[in-house]
Amino acid sequence: MLGNFSFCNPTKLYFGDQALQNLGDELDRYGKNVVLIYGGGSIKINGIYDEVTAILREKGKAVAEISGVMPNPTVDKLYEGVAIARAHHADFLLAVGGGSVCDYAKAVSVSVHCDEDPWDKYYLRFEEPTCETLPVGCVLTMVGTGSEMNAGAVITNPHAHLKIGHVFADEKIMPKFAILNPNYTLTLPHRQMAAGIYDIFNHICEQYFSGEDDNTSDDLSEGLMRSVIDAGRAANRDPQNYEARSNLMWSATWALNTLLSRGKSTDWMVHMIGQSVGAYTNATHGMTLSAVSLPYYRYILPYGVKKFARFAVRVWDVDPADKSDEQIAGEGLARMESWMKELGLAMNLRELGATEDMIDGIADGTILLTGGYKTLSRDEVVLILKECL
Amino acid sequence: MLGNFSFCNPTKLYFGDQALQNLGDELDRYGKNVVLIYGGGSIKINGIYDEVTAILREKGKAVAEISGVMPNPTVDKLYEGVAIARAHHADFLLAVGGGSVCDYAKAVSVSVHCDEDPWDKYYLRFEEPTCETLPVGCVLTMVGTGSEMNAGAVITNPHAHLKIGHVFADEKIMPKFAILNPNYTLTLPHRQMAAGIYDIFNHICEQYFSGEDDNTSDDLSEGLMRSVIDAGRAANRDPQNYEARSNLMWSATWALNTLLSRGKSTDWMVHMIGQSVGAYTNATHGMTLSAVSLPYYRYILPYGVKKFARFAVRVWDVDPADKSDEQIAGEGLARMESWMKELGLAMNLRELGATEDMIDGIADGTILLTGGYKTLSRDEVVLILKECL
Repeated sequence: MLGNFSFCNPTKLYFGDQALQNLGDELDRYGKNVVLIYGGGSIKINGIYDEVTAILREKGKAVAEISGVMPNPTVDKLYEGVAIARAHHADFLLAVGGGSVCDYAKAVSVSVHCDEDPWDKYYLRFEEPTCETLPVGCVLTMVGTGSEMNAGAVITNPHAHLKIGHVFADEKIMPKFAILNPNYTLTLPHRQMAAGIYDIFNHICEQYFSGEDDNTSDDLSEGLMRSVIDAGRAANRDPQNYEARSNLMWSATWALNTLLSRGKSTDWMVHMIGQSVGAYTNATHGMTLSAVSLPYYRYILPYGVKKFARFAVRVWDVDPADKSDEQIAGEGLARMESWMKELGLAMNLRELGATEDMIDGIADGTILLTGGYKTLSRDEVVLILKECL
Repeated sequence: MLGNFSFCNPTKLYFGDQALQNLGDELDRYGKNVVLIYGGGSIKINGIYDEVTAILREKGKAVAEISGVMPNPTVDKLYEGVAIARAHHADFLLAVGGGSVCDYAKAVSVSVHCDEDPWDKYYLRFEEPTCETLPVGCVLTMVGTGSEMNAGAVITNPHAHLKIGHVFADEKIMPKFAILNPNYTLTLPHRQMAAGIYDIFNHICEQYFSGEDDNTSDDLSEGLMRSVIDAGRAANRDPQNYEARSNLMWSATWALNTLLSRGKSTDWMVHMIGQSVGAYTNATHGMTLSAVSLPYYRYILPYGVKKFARFAVRVWDVDPADKSDEQIAGEGLARMESWMKELGLAMNLRELGATEDMIDGIADGTILLTGGYKTLSRDEVVLILKECL
């Protein structure tokens, strides 16, 4: 049964190989002082930086830059960006990059006019902004996080070994617009592409593996998972396949723009464990998720066997005839494992540089949520992490 | 392949049995002069009128009323409403009812400050508003059209025997908010409920039966169709089943809020023929769709057999082993026909009061679109209509 909820997502999306043509008109809606935010500089190699800055010049914008936003943006980088945006009297933040760059721009947005320490306020106390926030726009160059159409922002504090995501409640934190050109994702290294594909898939799993009832969200989730599986296979076989990349880009947005979770409970423990792994290893987000997923799902399977059996039949085409729910569910996870290996995902934590002596610390940094089929204790997290090594 | 498109849908949705609690805060955002718009008065019997007017009073609103909005709102009723809204210097339009009342409110919204005849401008010339428009909010009491989260408004001109829908391009025509309480739909007569269920299902079909490519929209559509089939069966067996009604309400919104059609071609010929039937018979919208659907789909099946076969397997669980695509596709439509009969839908035009002498006029009033698997000629519409009798 769908419970009480609200839904509002005003982000304007421009999709397709001509999407950047809309950037100029969107920029017209905002003030003169723009902060351009990007990552390690790949946009200077593939030409996107030149295209975007030409549009900014044409529109007469005064541009400051925050470059070098890292895959797991740190709290120190956040402080640096806030200082740049303040010095520039920023009216608008333009993120050009993947989910980390979008997340980072939103974190700067809520921090520029904030009198308190943003790490303490937003990531330790999970408060909402009480100050003015800056509008954010995104030009997406990597696919996976869904950050282009939601109000989430993950920040890492490497000193404290903490990687924490805050999904802000107010839709005004969502990007005002996002430019989604699948061509921008064609040059991504295979490992980044695969990690992004699994990030999308796991976002859907996190919202699906919870609750006993019959609801529209689960039916939508199954359709979206089938799309990610098929498009992921096609992109893996041929990384230049535009159709597959366009389906992945669109699926990623809808996998985490708040639609799938409306009215139902959710799990999110793979992300909680994976984020803690990320804080210790600085490994790619999607790979931390793939490395912990199967041990986690096999551990909780007995507590949600009906849903895992439904998943096997509806998503992985397992034939249920003459089998127990446990058998069906197990076959579903086996097919999921084959698909993950086909994509070349990390299947254990050692591949990511984690070692046995980190396990206690990773377990300490894992936030224990209650929405899934089994509420884990810290000891159970340790058990699962040992299975992941 | 997903083509170039934009997507923006800023309507705020409040869902659940407590959803009306949010009406007061939403009304605070708009001016004092509210026009309350409703239909035949069922909201006075089931108590919704009293609840809504109490909130309007509490908020100190000056309220004028437009009552008696009919199931197929006429152009004369539109002129009447425009006069009432002008006389009241309306700041805000509050629609309380089903899709017809929401559609009508949007038509009034774009017409109040329009200097031209709105029928000519919006429905014969399909122009966009060039004047100020009024904000609209909805309290939904019937499920089906998706009008609560889109910019469409269907108006009927009975003098000209024309029923025409205009989907406005600007998202500001979409309702600012919609209150979706599944309890409000529990008292609906069975025939209205069934018509609404088929309206939802057909909206998805219209966007699904077009195109040869592989895209995320079709996967989402299949998930949503499965949800409507299951929830439709459950609501038909037990009209008091809140879970089923909540899934139908949520599916209806997403079936026609522009998501499913992004980046792909669409058909919409069942609606074109059905709307022309409606202009001649004044029959319930969903029933005109059910009466023409199967003859239409069986006629175009040879031109889109692969998609109809996919539909059979993915949506209706037809076992494809050792069968031709034609056989699989035919079995899918047969299962759809059984489901439609189970719901008690109109399966031919005679049930709706149509007679053979109307066929030429209905064909003349049918707008011929090009997105489907077969572009119909007027003669083919006549052939299909004869099959529907």
